[in-house]
Amino acid sequence: MSQIEALLAGDRLALTRVLTQVENDTSDGRRALDELFAHTGRAYLIGITGASGTGKSSLVNHLAYYYRHPQQGEQPQRVAVVAVDPSSPFTGGALLGDRIRMRDLAGDPGVFIRSMASRGSLGGLARTTSALVQVFDAAGFDLIMIETVGAGQAEVDIARLAHTTLVVEAPGMGDDIQAIKAGILEVADVLVVNKADHPGVEGTERALRAMLELAHPSPRVFRHHGRKEVLPEEHAQAQDQPVWVPPIQRTIATDGKGIPEVAAAIARHRQHLEHSGDLARRERFRLQTELENLLQATLVARWREASSTQAYLEVLDDLVRRHISPHQAVTQLINGGYSL
Amino acid sequence: MSQIEALLAGDRLALTRVLTQVENDTSDGRRALDELFAHTGRAYLIGITGASGTGKSSLVNHLAYYYRHPQQGEQPQRVAVVAVDPSSPFTGGALLGDRIRMRDLAGDPGVFIRSMASRGSLGGLARTTSALVQVFDAAGFDLIMIETVGAGQAEVDIARLAHTTLVVEAPGMGDDIQAIKAGILEVADVLVVNKADHPGVEGTERALRAMLELAHPSPRVFRHHGRKEVLPEEHAQAQDQPVWVPPIQRTIATDGKGIPEVAAAIARHRQHLEHSGDLARRERFRLQTELENLLQATLVARWREASSTQAYLEVLDDLVRRHISPHQAVTQLINGGYSL
Repeated sequence: MSQIEALLAGDRLALTRVLTQVENDTSDGRRALDELFAHTGRAYLIGITGASGTGKSSLVNHLAYYYRHPQQGEQPQRVAVVAVDPSSPFTGGALLGDRIRMRDLAGDPGVFIRSMASRGSLGGLARTTSALVQVFDAAGFDLIMIETVGAGQAEVDIARLAHTTLVVEAPGMGDDIQAIKAGILEVADVLVVNKADHPGVEGTERALRAMLELAHPSPRVFRHHGRKEVLPEEHAQAQDQPVWVPPIQRTIATDGKGIPEVAAAIARHRQHLEHSGDLARRERFRLQTELENLLQATLVARWREASSTQAYLEVLDDLVRRHISPHQAVTQLINGGYSL
Repeated sequence: MSQIEALLAGDRLALTRVLTQVENDTSDGRRALDELFAHTGRAYLIGITGASGTGKSSLVNHLAYYYRHPQQGEQPQRVAVVAVDPSSPFTGGALLGDRIRMRDLAGDPGVFIRSMASRGSLGGLARTTSALVQVFDAAGFDLIMIETVGAGQAEVDIARLAHTTLVVEAPGMGDDIQAIKAGILEVADVLVVNKADHPGVEGTERALRAMLELAHPSPRVFRHHGRKEVLPEEHAQAQDQPVWVPPIQRTIATDGKGIPEVAAAIARHRQHLEHSGDLARRERFRLQTELENLLQATLVARWREASSTQAYLEVLDDLVRRHISPHQAVTQLINGGYSL
């Protein structure tokens, strides 16, 4: 039995090996991705993002536990977690995180947690995340949670590859809400106010609700020169499918409080996506993003193979001496050494 | 007098126009960058990053004010600020930020503040930031501050284009230090603990100091099998140029407290860079990053011009149906429609 066959049959060791090959972007890893891709498209992807200190990891941990031990009458789901942790090498963040998260789930064959400690470029991080998700998908995991640490643009871009994206807040994180400045509220499908036993939870929830009102206004009728007018974009929205307004869920993740309600909100959003046709649209967008990232990386790699390092360094020297501008440098590099 | 000549002569209106052309990436903007590049390389670039809620904008505001009104015997500096604010359109973050920041500096011709409200791709954001910095540099600004909102990888990548990077923390931002998880401590040249009148400032400073110890260990002598050994990497470090250990500065930015001390720390770091030769190395790295970003964007743009949209959509359809893998799709696209 080949390694791929073993992985498809549920072999954990084969899965671990393929994940490593894929993360290291080896030729074996790339071959595996090609072979596995036809088996993907069945998993449901859940993104979890928010600033550090909001208790995201506990939430992921308890959600995974919940999906393994659901309420009576429901089937346990196979759950994979990809934790994207571009922390600096000296903190050893990924390793530590792994151990903490593993505590409650250790020994359960229906759970697999993978932390990515590698930094590298942003595009690279998104590409690797997507590749790992494909492997888990092909390996038959029902749910794949993608946890991103931090609340920057890059983390948002990774989290939005999911079908349902959770944005996690916590009270008392400073004098304004992290999500607003980072612009992540607009990718949220479900908002979670974690640490709901901490002071300030009402204020955080109120601020989130106010932001949601701005983002999802209900259709209003305006009087303008005596005529009734419905603003065009609101008219379109009103005629459209039912609009999803992100619910706000309170949790105390470390105690497991509010976890079933978050799972229910995710299930409702999934139903909404399926009924509205948005699921297919998101899926297409996701694959197109993947295609674009890979296309870009391949074009650059091919150019580099075909061009001379010597010429590159000479152009860089001219740039540093300010004899040529960056645009002129690029034109020189591409017109000089390019062939495929 | 051409617009470029006017800009070089200090005309503020010409500067505003060129900044807009450059931000919108028009052909005029690209031409302006080519013409201006020979006039760049004189400004000193200061990056300011950290999570939202740390009071970064107040710090930038007061630093700008300080450089305009320095201690006796020092020359006022011309200061530009590029605030990178990839917030969502509905928050109107950039506009609001502008007004707040402008309050103390309004009417001073030696100050220019530019907020970037545009989102777009990450590479695009870094490219535009770098281009705006070039325009300010050519326009004769002595100091250019690059403020990034948030503490994600993208924001760090933008901030690290500076000569001196400030990382801003504040007490009570959650149960762990933002900078550590986001991995930004390693790009810090100066650490600022703002809101130093808030409770918990000692704890924040202690945690930062502990992290710095990890990141910058002093050479230690180990006893191993009875022989004295100096660990190789520490030996190399000890023989090297004097090592810069990021100082920790407390501020209460809203009151201007600690601002002269932060400016002094920046000045010391600048001296260190100049004496150690690191300034030239950083400058080269900065321009190489710029070159790489632009090269990547240009390769993709040229490919897109040369290839057919129809073929692209067909390949995307095959991908969505999972008839081909992403890698196979890219190979098909590049080998199919490529010519330059």
